[in-house]
Amino acid sequence: MGMTVVEKILARAAGLPSVKVGDVVEPKVDLAMSHENAALVINQFQEVFEGTGLAPKIWDPSRIAIIFDHRVPAESPKTATNQKKIREFVAAHGITKFHDVRGDVGGICHQILPEYGYVRPGFVVVGTDSHTTSHGALGAFSFGIGATEMASVWSLGIAVNIEVPATIKVVVKGEFPPMVGPKDLILHLIGKLTAQGANYKVLEFHGETIRKMSTSGRIAICNMSVEAGATSGIVPGDEETVRYLREEAGVTEAIPCTTPDADATYCQTVEIDVSTLVPQIACPHMVDHVKPVDAVAGTKVQQIVIGSCTNGRLDDLEIAAGILRGKKVAEGTRMLVFPASSKIFAKALDRGIVHDLMKAGAVVMNSGCGPCLGVHEGALGDHEVALSTTNRNFKGRMGNPTGEVYLCSPAVAAASAITGAITDPRTMN
Amino acid sequence: MGMTVVEKILARAAGLPSVKVGDVVEPKVDLAMSHENAALVINQFQEVFEGTGLAPKIWDPSRIAIIFDHRVPAESPKTATNQKKIREFVAAHGITKFHDVRGDVGGICHQILPEYGYVRPGFVVVGTDSHTTSHGALGAFSFGIGATEMASVWSLGIAVNIEVPATIKVVVKGEFPPMVGPKDLILHLIGKLTAQGANYKVLEFHGETIRKMSTSGRIAICNMSVEAGATSGIVPGDEETVRYLREEAGVTEAIPCTTPDADATYCQTVEIDVSTLVPQIACPHMVDHVKPVDAVAGTKVQQIVIGSCTNGRLDDLEIAAGILRGKKVAEGTRMLVFPASSKIFAKALDRGIVHDLMKAGAVVMNSGCGPCLGVHEGALGDHEVALSTTNRNFKGRMGNPTGEVYLCSPAVAAASAITGAITDPRTMN
Repeated sequence: MGMTVVEKILARAAGLPSVKVGDVVEPKVDLAMSHENAALVINQFQEVFEGTGLAPKIWDPSRIAIIFDHRVPAESPKTATNQKKIREFVAAHGITKFHDVRGDVGGICHQILPEYGYVRPGFVVVGTDSHTTSHGALGAFSFGIGATEMASVWSLGIAVNIEVPATIKVVVKGEFPPMVGPKDLILHLIGKLTAQGANYKVLEFHGETIRKMSTSGRIAICNMSVEAGATSGIVPGDEETVRYLREEAGVTEAIPCTTPDADATYCQTVEIDVSTLVPQIACPHMVDHVKPVDAVAGTKVQQIVIGSCTNGRLDDLEIAAGILRGKKVAEGTRMLVFPASSKIFAKALDRGIVHDLMKAGAVVMNSGCGPCLGVHEGALGDHEVALSTTNRNFKGRMGNPTGEVYLCSPAVAAASAITGAITDPRTMN
Repeated sequence: MGMTVVEKILARAAGLPSVKVGDVVEPKVDLAMSHENAALVINQFQEVFEGTGLAPKIWDPSRIAIIFDHRVPAESPKTATNQKKIREFVAAHGITKFHDVRGDVGGICHQILPEYGYVRPGFVVVGTDSHTTSHGALGAFSFGIGATEMASVWSLGIAVNIEVPATIKVVVKGEFPPMVGPKDLILHLIGKLTAQGANYKVLEFHGETIRKMSTSGRIAICNMSVEAGATSGIVPGDEETVRYLREEAGVTEAIPCTTPDADATYCQTVEIDVSTLVPQIACPHMVDHVKPVDAVAGTKVQQIVIGSCTNGRLDDLEIAAGILRGKKVAEGTRMLVFPASSKIFAKALDRGIVHDLMKAGAVVMNSGCGPCLGVHEGALGDHEVALSTTNRNFKGRMGNPTGEVYLCSPAVAAASAITGAITDPRTMN
């Protein structure tokens, strides 16, 4: 019987000829990622060795990536002290895939992993962050785990008690209309599946639209697969994956791609034609509360956010700059832009994108998670409304339980910045 | 009997032929500035009218400037809600000199006032911020007041119970040696006078070195005059003042400059020759704890900050980029750069300074006060050491009472970023 991509990856990583849905396996981990919550993992990791008489030892320091992104630069002495503790641990254990608070090699973990070629097709990637699903964009089986599980991975190099998940096949066809793109596709899909619709399952993306989609777009859709409840999203590795890793990440060694068998078994198949898709908005306070932009157009917005692991890449910033060039952010609306990494920031500088966004009135911030998690750099005031290209709009997201967060594409965000209200970018001149 | 500059300004503003030290006067205010603490002023202002049956009315909305800079973008819902309240007040009262959280017209209040030509020679400027002394750089008598006093200014347009201060004449001669500049001069002066040495007095700056100094350097020395206890620092308006206001602030109307009488009376005269000055460092935890750089060279530093109202201008960033170009910020040291305004950020973009600083590893942040006040964007971890171009190093500054803050010039900060320890920039290649 044929296997899906994830089944093939798990079989290889668990050293088995094949696996099927429901099997419990213990795959070797190819990459284990944490951000500032590495501080918790360190505590758990040290406990593993307590009373054993053994010094805490990481199974393979070269397979651990730690990226500071959630609170950079530190917003509080507590965060700064945590970061200091992690920095010392990283040095003591010889962890080289470490990205500190820096303007040259810093950024959001889900951007850094692809950008530096740390993730490859066929890898098993685990991360102490729910949007670890992002790395399925490069054909890896990549999912979020807790700090305790991560401590176990750091010690043993395997992920324990992994139940082989069922897979939903998502087939996407058609060409995106102008001002419509991958973010609209994934919002539409989440609305269709609901927030629990893909629980414990994998979303495996196929179809001509996916094949023609850039890695940036693929990261956006895999990133948000978790918002439909999925364990992971995955785009089987292909020519674009190889191109990205060669050209953008500088990978020189062989890049074998794992593809599903033609007779693989899927629990469900979803087909989407994007040629008739309109800009989508996830309304407060659920990501699956998705409506076409027209349904909420005109809603006044006090804060616009463009950035995050979902939509903070060069193409996203380029779309925003294209719409804002020569225009002004509305009075009374503030626009915050967070490039997903220092490298993206540098490219956006070189192309004049940062200049154009700032000239329009946008505040361009350091690379990092910014206000997405509501702890600094753009909290909402009481009863304020935000429109954001980020991935979650739960009550209290962006720091204020009386605030409301709408999610959208960079095009919708940029168009709305000009008017100060939710605006269909297809109606802009 | 002749008058000092401040005596002349106060006499004019109080409608008197002359004033002398110790007189109590009520000068008309030409400009009244607040930042986020306008929220407190609004409360006090509304109380003034309570029970009077009158609607709260500002004496002259065109003379009020409100600039968001201390916590931008808002680090907390409380700050965001305060900013929202101020934004509504500004709209309701027709205050036009309002600078919101924006990438085109935002920045630090003490940079915005000169940059937009809001402050002129001979003006009486009051601000609800201790570094309001900065605006003496343009020949204004400019000083900090509390929220209650400001509410009175908003209502009446005059500053009440102002005792004419004595003036210390500071005469500066000589040419700065390479890698030595205005920040070293003011640190040296504060060390010499002590933190209380100019209490209730004005520092009036004179001499060939001051005449040749750019407005940027003059802002730095007037900014920190308050750290010697001075009510205000002032550089009598001259050709450079007029040039700055014409060329950089776009002022077209006449710019009369007030100069002191030749027979003015000073309580003290201080003479400084900068030709033998070396880079100066203010050591923890007092601004007057000033030493030559050699005395503390080699001290390990975890955080470098370049920016603030003291040293976040284009020349400061240019000096830093000149030293860091083609080099790297040391591992384990983070470097944060805060341009003093959006306009400066834009110029630094256009000149490749932002690019060069980021390439070296510096994190370039949005314009604003950043970590200077320790509430976000770069708090220190426990027992960490910072080296900063800002103006205060009191215990707990930068958010952590166990941290230590050293103050220095942009040249010292940039050189130290490369080595990760306090470094004399004159020793760099």
